[in-house]
Amino acid sequence: MTALTEPTPEHLAELAGCLDAGGVLDAAADAAQPYLVEPRGLIRGRAAVILKPASTAQVAAILRLCHGHRIGVVPYGGGTGLVGGQVSPEGSGAGPRPVVLSLERMNRIRAVLPSDGAIIAEAGVVLADLQAAASGAGRLFPLSLAAEGSCRIGGNLATNAGGVQVLRYGTARDLCLGLEAVLADGSVLAGLKPLRKDNTGYDLRHLLIGSEGTLGVITAASLKLFPRPGEVVTAMLAVPSPDSAVTLLQTLREGLGDGVSAFELIAGQGIAFLAEFHPSRPDPLGGRPDWRVLVEITGPSGAGLTGRAETMLAELFEAGLASDGVLAANEAQRAHMWWMRETLPECNRRVGPVASHDISLPLSRIGRFIAEARDVVDGFGPSLRVNCFGHLGDGNLHYNVFPPEGGRVAGCRALAGPVRTAIHDLVHAHGGSFSAEHGIGRMKTGDLETYGDPAKLAAMRAIKAALDPRGILNPGAVLAG
Amino acid sequence: MTALTEPTPEHLAELAGCLDAGGVLDAAADAAQPYLVEPRGLIRGRAAVILKPASTAQVAAILRLCHGHRIGVVPYGGGTGLVGGQVSPEGSGAGPRPVVLSLERMNRIRAVLPSDGAIIAEAGVVLADLQAAASGAGRLFPLSLAAEGSCRIGGNLATNAGGVQVLRYGTARDLCLGLEAVLADGSVLAGLKPLRKDNTGYDLRHLLIGSEGTLGVITAASLKLFPRPGEVVTAMLAVPSPDSAVTLLQTLREGLGDGVSAFELIAGQGIAFLAEFHPSRPDPLGGRPDWRVLVEITGPSGAGLTGRAETMLAELFEAGLASDGVLAANEAQRAHMWWMRETLPECNRRVGPVASHDISLPLSRIGRFIAEARDVVDGFGPSLRVNCFGHLGDGNLHYNVFPPEGGRVAGCRALAGPVRTAIHDLVHAHGGSFSAEHGIGRMKTGDLETYGDPAKLAAMRAIKAALDPRGILNPGAVLAG
Repeated sequence: MTALTEPTPEHLAELAGCLDAGGVLDAAADAAQPYLVEPRGLIRGRAAVILKPASTAQVAAILRLCHGHRIGVVPYGGGTGLVGGQVSPEGSGAGPRPVVLSLERMNRIRAVLPSDGAIIAEAGVVLADLQAAASGAGRLFPLSLAAEGSCRIGGNLATNAGGVQVLRYGTARDLCLGLEAVLADGSVLAGLKPLRKDNTGYDLRHLLIGSEGTLGVITAASLKLFPRPGEVVTAMLAVPSPDSAVTLLQTLREGLGDGVSAFELIAGQGIAFLAEFHPSRPDPLGGRPDWRVLVEITGPSGAGLTGRAETMLAELFEAGLASDGVLAANEAQRAHMWWMRETLPECNRRVGPVASHDISLPLSRIGRFIAEARDVVDGFGPSLRVNCFGHLGDGNLHYNVFPPEGGRVAGCRALAGPVRTAIHDLVHAHGGSFSAEHGIGRMKTGDLETYGDPAKLAAMRAIKAALDPRGILNPGAVLAG
Repeated sequence: MTALTEPTPEHLAELAGCLDAGGVLDAAADAAQPYLVEPRGLIRGRAAVILKPASTAQVAAILRLCHGHRIGVVPYGGGTGLVGGQVSPEGSGAGPRPVVLSLERMNRIRAVLPSDGAIIAEAGVVLADLQAAASGAGRLFPLSLAAEGSCRIGGNLATNAGGVQVLRYGTARDLCLGLEAVLADGSVLAGLKPLRKDNTGYDLRHLLIGSEGTLGVITAASLKLFPRPGEVVTAMLAVPSPDSAVTLLQTLREGLGDGVSAFELIAGQGIAFLAEFHPSRPDPLGGRPDWRVLVEITGPSGAGLTGRAETMLAELFEAGLASDGVLAANEAQRAHMWWMRETLPECNRRVGPVASHDISLPLSRIGRFIAEARDVVDGFGPSLRVNCFGHLGDGNLHYNVFPPEGGRVAGCRALAGPVRTAIHDLVHAHGGSFSAEHGIGRMKTGDLETYGDPAKLAAMRAIKAALDPRGILNPGAVLAG
């Protein structure tokens, strides 16, 4: 790959010529600053200009120019990514400033096709708006995550977002029937057919999904819709251990089939954080158990789901798989249980983690991993606190390490790297992944080099060079160089 | 890409040196002939030698040599593919003879991991054996198709096979957690982790799945297991039209959720073929309706599924969505209904089609397409017979055109090409696919050129050149040249 260049004033004028007046934002303007920060303030970004195309044709024109002039392009969705994929950092050796390409103005729902079980949305549609459009047509679009009020579907697809309903409905990848995308040279992949089966050549859809804007810019997607569940059972259950939570999940799935749509593990430490920052909100469970799960079971109405779920839960208590539990009796109680789960990341940010890990493990290794990881953390300091929570049904844990009670993260800064390495080493030893759902971005390129399969990395580099020979797309993301 | 060469005697000796004695089969031997025919006799193949590696290391050694000497390699699974992907044809302009690489000796189940919901199988495991291994562990591996007694999982993945349970469980692609594969240069991708979520770089798994052996040779896979359904309801229902069948499906899915696991459309013509070749086997429905569906609904035991399904079916009759119907009262009746569905391809072969089409359409277009396609066929001859059947729930039809009653296919041979083009044109006009589940192979490379998205084709060529720069893998398949 040849070196990139910084756009000259002439290039910037050419780029502005691709767009209408509302499409160009000076990178020095106040309004541009939100595009240039990582959401937790971990990276300060930079750009030559922020471009906001309003159509696929405008995206194509921009990429054609950037390809011609060898200008880097950082695609930008809702800006909520947690691995720096959307921010090109300042600093020495950062190279020429790129263009930030925000898809926010491409926010139309192009078609709602309930009888095809599909919806066609542009990349800039906010996830919550997409959910609402599906709901308005009497259907469910199941992708659901804490950032849904601001993340955009193009970014969700580019990063293969996960969230709380993966257990039943899969990740963003599994919800996508087809893509429209602009490749590095400005050519447009037109793949929006709402077909369930189409074996006509290589699956570029799946190659682009999860490639974090390094192989193409997703401009629109054809997505799956599902029947809306008529009945929802939500429960919070205290469990003796993470392993018993895994057994509990398997028992529920055997008894209720695909109906188990969410299964979230929550550690007592997370509840302690909630109590610290939101003392007026009650805990439905008494005695602050070390481990609990938030379970949601959904199904069509008239299927007697609530009764069956209640019977099963009673059996779980008898079998010792749960020691306490509360069923949400109404929507307010259900919303409160989910509020608890969804507020954990905010609490984590307020405490300030020494190190955070978005990991996945084979389900059979979860219990052993959690025990061994605690030993690893103890080796750095037995009073370090751990908030381990996440999408247990997918084997996906958010394993976050915090300073001791009353301590501040500043005092532990030197531990960040070593803790992170030790935890990732342990994950690797258990056959797990150091990035379950957040991706690689710019923060985990080193982990990919360390833990990635060398043959896979070589193939990834070959594909990157084939589809983006000048390396303009999201330079520095996923593949470090 | 540079030209391939035919293996010299020295090359063949080198290749044989990679294998044990049982691994080399002379291409002229009788035992080699089954590897050199298309299952319906449509293509006569050729090879310099048949190689049967027993390990991933042997596959890697073979590919390293073939890459070095520029020898073509045709990967071979169960040989049941229907688009010629597994057979390099004889004839003028065929180029140098390739090596046929059969994975049949790599037929070990490497691990059954019920608590991880996964099974790890080598590419040569016969699909039915894989289903049995899952069943032996109290789990379900849901991929199911007519060829399951002889097709092999490596071929199923290489072609992204579909079958009768896609509606609920997805295609082969959706059932795969990870792959081990050998790339053109002999490097080995080691991706067998049984993880549900792993966002660490480009998804090479999905790129290899459906690439029909042109980007790499799949040697093993980590596959999803599901709880075995405790209750199964199977019904055959006469429907007034294909459109009412689609409405019926949507109504069932709204009422029963994900429980609808199969939904097959069968035309009266197919039943007429069955009666001709299997006159002693009864039709559960009287009056030979023009259209019927075979529906299967599954769920956990104790969920009262049978009762709910019976109630729903009664409502469907009242709503006029079904005019007649039979519920399988026991396993023998269920097996008979499925035998009817699974025997249709055999009947089609015995009649001898003028043209066959494996197509998919948006569900909302099914009814219109079927009506318009009959008009198209009538334009070639109103007495031509049509057997239209398939996986309606996925929008996937097998649309087969036959000579008039008493006529022979020989008399209609000149119609084959024009009928095929006219049907594929109509599919394209309705936003459908000319290959829903069979793939491209060597028989549909022209269709891919005609109907494929030019930007997609260019990207496919770039990826092929990047991963197989010498073009040794399955030359002539998918991309014609």
